[in-house]
Amino acid sequence: MRIGVLTAGGDCPGLNAVIRSVVHRALAGHGDEVIGFEDGFKGLLDGRYRSLDLNAVSGILARGGTILGSTRLERTRLHEAADNWRQLCGAYGLDVLIPIGGEGTLTAARMLADAGMPVVGVPKTIDNDISATDRTFGFDTAVTVATEAIDRLKTTAESHQRVMVVEVMGRHAGWIALESGMAGGAHGICLPERPFDPADLVAMVEERFARGKKFAVICVAEGAHPAAGTMDYGKGIVDQYGHERFIGIGTALAVELEQRLGKEAKPVILGHVQRGGVPTAYDRILATRFGWHAVEAAHKGAFGHMTALHGTSVDLVPLADAVTTLKRVPENRMDEAESVF
Amino acid sequence: MRIGVLTAGGDCPGLNAVIRSVVHRALAGHGDEVIGFEDGFKGLLDGRYRSLDLNAVSGILARGGTILGSTRLERTRLHEAADNWRQLCGAYGLDVLIPIGGEGTLTAARMLADAGMPVVGVPKTIDNDISATDRTFGFDTAVTVATEAIDRLKTTAESHQRVMVVEVMGRHAGWIALESGMAGGAHGICLPERPFDPADLVAMVEERFARGKKFAVICVAEGAHPAAGTMDYGKGIVDQYGHERFIGIGTALAVELEQRLGKEAKPVILGHVQRGGVPTAYDRILATRFGWHAVEAAHKGAFGHMTALHGTSVDLVPLADAVTTLKRVPENRMDEAESVF
Amino acid sequence: MRIGVLTAGGDCPGLNAVIRSVVHRALAGHGDEVIGFEDGFKGLLDGRYRSLDLNAVSGILARGGTILGSTRLERTRLHEAADNWRQLCGAYGLDVLIPIGGEGTLTAARMLADAGMPVVGVPKTIDNDISATDRTFGFDTAVTVATEAIDRLKTTAESHQRVMVVEVMGRHAGWIALESGMAGGAHGICLPERPFDPADLVAMVEERFARGKKFAVICVAEGAHPAAGTMDYGKGIVDQYGHERFIGIGTALAVELEQRLGKEAKPVILGHVQRGGVPTAYDRILATRFGWHAVEAAHKGAFGHMTALHGTSVDLVPLADAVTTLKRVPENRMDEAESVF
Amino acid sequence: MRIGVLTAGGDCPGLNAVIRSVVHRALAGHGDEVIGFEDGFKGLLDGRYRSLDLNAVSGILARGGTILGSTRLERTRLHEAADNWRQLCGAYGLDVLIPIGGEGTLTAARMLADAGMPVVGVPKTIDNDISATDRTFGFDTAVTVATEAIDRLKTTAESHQRVMVVEVMGRHAGWIALESGMAGGAHGICLPERPFDPADLVAMVEERFARGKKFAVICVAEGAHPAAGTMDYGKGIVDQYGHERFIGIGTALAVELEQRLGKEAKPVILGHVQRGGVPTAYDRILATRFGWHAVEAAHKGAFGHMTALHGTSVDLVPLADAVTTLKRVPENRMDEAESVF
Repeated sequence: MRIGVLTAGGDCPGLNAVIRSVVHRALAGHGDEVIGFEDGFKGLLDGRYRSLDLNAVSGILARGGTILGSTRLERTRLHEAADNWRQLCGAYGLDVLIPIGGEGTLTAARMLADAGMPVVGVPKTIDNDISATDRTFGFDTAVTVATEAIDRLKTTAESHQRVMVVEVMGRHAGWIALESGMAGGAHGICLPERPFDPADLVAMVEERFARGKKFAVICVAEGAHPAAGTMDYGKGIVDQYGHERFIGIGTALAVELEQRLGKEAKPVILGHVQRGGVPTAYDRILATRFGWHAVEAAHKGAFGHMTALHGTSVDLVPLADAVTTLKRVPENRMDEAESVF
Repeated sequence: MRIGVLTAGGDCPGLNAVIRSVVHRALAGHGDEVIGFEDGFKGLLDGRYRSLDLNAVSGILARGGTILGSTRLERTRLHEAADNWRQLCGAYGLDVLIPIGGEGTLTAARMLADAGMPVVGVPKTIDNDISATDRTFGFDTAVTVATEAIDRLKTTAESHQRVMVVEVMGRHAGWIALESGMAGGAHGICLPERPFDPADLVAMVEERFARGKKFAVICVAEGAHPAAGTMDYGKGIVDQYGHERFIGIGTALAVELEQRLGKEAKPVILGHVQRGGVPTAYDRILATRFGWHAVEAAHKGAFGHMTALHGTSVDLVPLADAVTTLKRVPENRMDEAESVF
Repeated sequence: MRIGVLTAGGDCPGLNAVIRSVVHRALAGHGDEVIGFEDGFKGLLDGRYRSLDLNAVSGILARGGTILGSTRLERTRLHEAADNWRQLCGAYGLDVLIPIGGEGTLTAARMLADAGMPVVGVPKTIDNDISATDRTFGFDTAVTVATEAIDRLKTTAESHQRVMVVEVMGRHAGWIALESGMAGGAHGICLPERPFDPADLVAMVEERFARGKKFAVICVAEGAHPAAGTMDYGKGIVDQYGHERFIGIGTALAVELEQRLGKEAKPVILGHVQRGGVPTAYDRILATRFGWHAVEAAHKGAFGHMTALHGTSVDLVPLADAVTTLKRVPENRMDEAESVF
Repeated sequence: MRIGVLTAGGDCPGLNAVIRSVVHRALAGHGDEVIGFEDGFKGLLDGRYRSLDLNAVSGILARGGTILGSTRLERTRLHEAADNWRQLCGAYGLDVLIPIGGEGTLTAARMLADAGMPVVGVPKTIDNDISATDRTFGFDTAVTVATEAIDRLKTTAESHQRVMVVEVMGRHAGWIALESGMAGGAHGICLPERPFDPADLVAMVEERFARGKKFAVICVAEGAHPAAGTMDYGKGIVDQYGHERFIGIGTALAVELEQRLGKEAKPVILGHVQRGGVPTAYDRILATRFGWHAVEAAHKGAFGHMTALHGTSVDLVPLADAVTTLKRVPENRMDEAESVF
């Protein structure tokens, strides 16, 4: 078999581990050939690819980023790919394509599969918001990085009597905020799934100070937002080129708390450190298993499917199921955390 | 409700997170009282306990060890406890006991429950070998510590052309070796579940050297053993008091490889660093969820059960199911790893 | 002897290690008594203190923050302390005061010493900008945290062809930016000591892209600033309460580069994670040595001095020397880094 | 100029950072050429080398090991090199050789320099035992790894009432044991510089248990040894091939304590994890500075010297001074640690 692999979308620790695993399984397990397309679907369309042998993937298991590069995909060019998939496969001698990516990439993968192209997807998102799989690789690393930051902030908050607001990633789903908030012991957690009222956070902080715990750490997902009418955001950032940009919920909430509490409240915006660098052991293992099963799926002809974790097993699910609904934090998980506002 | 909690058995990162979670949920969620018995079942029998309020569990979420202490349990004294459970509960005003522990502790918990005592168990083992739950807390930390060690050893092995044998924990089940071996990219993995032949490892190393990869890292569970007749262990360690002790499979295998390969092979025995210290974010979250659900189970009267992770949910399973069979690494998980010998 | 200890100023990993070391050396080495004032000089003036025995400092060596608390000091109240130092010492039975703090604290310490009070200072700053000592504890931890962030960002920048601007602490001296920039391999470093021209950074990035290295990471101290006339900052942040605040050099520079390069440039502001949490081994050792030597200095009657690292030795220097000039990054250190703009 | 670089001796985190820095400074700062000899002096003699340009050293700053490889040097072949240095330099067009290594390598470097070869040395040892420099790179990483292990062991020791003996590297000098023991808060530290009496350790542990601190962690350098007549080692390890090997001081001491205390005492031998893997920020910076200054020294014609850290400066010292005396832990440093036995 001749297998093509590509990575698309934003960065996610574990991408290289999937690539390595695909190559190992394909070459050592089946005697296949593997080629890697550069910069995601662009490389597929523009004919930029390279052969991936064991040496090409040596030493990349623990490395962040992706050796294949990745760019955001243009939708129009994807239709072009779907229409010409036979030619593309012919040109590269491709028997199957394994795209590794998030919601956008898997939607694209489905489009190609629907057109008839032999495709097996591997889901990837640090946000953990793909509903067809229990977890995605990259998520554990993001939670770990965010938790380490909260750990560090907590000692400062406690000994210096500070209120701190940590903004973590998660635009549409609050998994990173939920889990890093739980792991770090945040006193308040704000999620996109449940609009919060800043007055409740103010009450929580004041109750803490009243009983002698003169600090608080609040963990807020970048996509969290206040309930209608409870708080506004000002003009945000007005930069030197006159552009206005959203101030960010972390900063806005810190301003709001500072004003209402009459105490200093500091925002910390973790940003891209959550999506780069060495993957955790957990993510390397999950990524490696996904790569292995993607190759097996290809050999079984299970096209139009993607790998998914269910309990302790890696299974295959139809791409159609994977991208229909976003996996958001359910009420019962919020209950367990105790501190979701 | 008045809830008693205790920790028993060997150390396991996340124990404090469970204790904290039990206290938080019981006090804040239900207005319960919580007492903690010291040094496991000993404290229960000897009347050594203390009240656990919010202050008592402040700051312990990320701390290794257990604030309650733990000692190995004596079986005869446990029968004493089972026979007198009514008196014990009466003396402490106890409505439910939540023992946190491994196979031995859960067996004891079951014995107490069978005698009629209201008990809800929380499973704990770094070895991940309890069959009724997908995972146990402590395991992720152990795998993480072992993986970081393998990462470090690999760079030395590669640049200095060395063969290295890393021995990790796992007497009866090879989960730590399997997962840290996969995450660290070990070239060979030996598990208790499958006796290995040193000749196969020798062949693997020689094949690597032949194609220019002049190093190898082998990850071996402490309970792994060679197939009958393939290798012996010598006298082992003969210490200054004349005691003979098992040399350990890691050391024995390194000696064997050195002799057969004619190349230096170094053993590294990770030992107790795998079971202490700050738990990973993953383990803190799982431990916190287990504590929360144990309190809920107590309030529902679900005695004789323990908490368990199934997929993304924490459920309850009968203690009877928990301790009948050891969860060992199945064949299909070995296949995925590619490098199990 | 009866020794008073206090911590003042911003957070700094290693404060607890100094407190512990003072107590260990004073009690075990000399049979002294130690009391700790709460919340810095405030506790001294308000009579809030507690006795510190071995149990009080058990387990704090590796903990961030300070068990004594810290608040910013009010200058007028300090004059009050200087004027009444005899009464204060009398009231507490104090033979010597050991204040641990940064430039402001050491200036206060000097004022007290000049008034006649027996004082031995211990310098503390994550910024490493105190000229009388080779290094201060807290700095190594700050550099380590910043370096880990740059490591993570670099893999993302590389595989996703990004320009990233990391803002680290350092208002008046650029040591953290210099060293984390060197350790992380930043392609550009901007320091308060040398105004930069954004055009030079643009040229560097373009040169990199031209030779196929399609990413760049720039490390900028929060106190770095552009040369006069080369760039402005806009209105900055305009929050919901109408306050205008400085946008921050990291964000401003990212905007500037994005505009001039026509490529996305992302800012990451590390903030307070650099000053909290578990200290590195280096900082724990330096802090421990400082505490030990402060007690020895007290016993030698070397008042009006502070501890300082010179080469491999911990010595004493007059407080007068410590606070006269800020230690800034010299030209030759910038040369070594190669990438300072 | 045409510069040759090589790495020799055991592994040491930071080797790659030196190589990278030499290449960066030589190419970007001076327009030089750099070649790297493979496997230490062997590559020099056998003509195995490769050209090192910017791409060759891209991404290696934070990587453990050495991209050039390293083997232990054979003394007879070195004399061969010294005798033929003119031919070797002629053959490679070499203007200067920069060997990076420990005591053995620097002695070899001195021999070559004495013969007239243009040589600039860079000192390297995780043991920190080279007297002409305040510190060497690799040492901070080793101390950090050992400290993290002690941190982990301490929580287990405390909650499970254990005595633990951690053996760290350091055959002739006890720097790693001293500093990791201080940073980890070990209750006893044993160094090669001061023979210990196990009876003193027994007394310390018993005193701790008597006052309720029912655990102890002892940090012992691999080269530490008991005072004459205080303890013996037994036969050690007798392996399956009948070889007797030293049991190791960590294991022997644990056996001794267990026997004398009547309590379980567990040894943990950290081994090679201390010398591999990602270097700390501190070590990357020192290594980078050493590389930079080695190239400058070459251009100044300061042959027969090596780089050295003195206070905050990197200077040059004659190779003759570097290798005459081993830097051992002095009495005053032991006093500061309080717990050296």
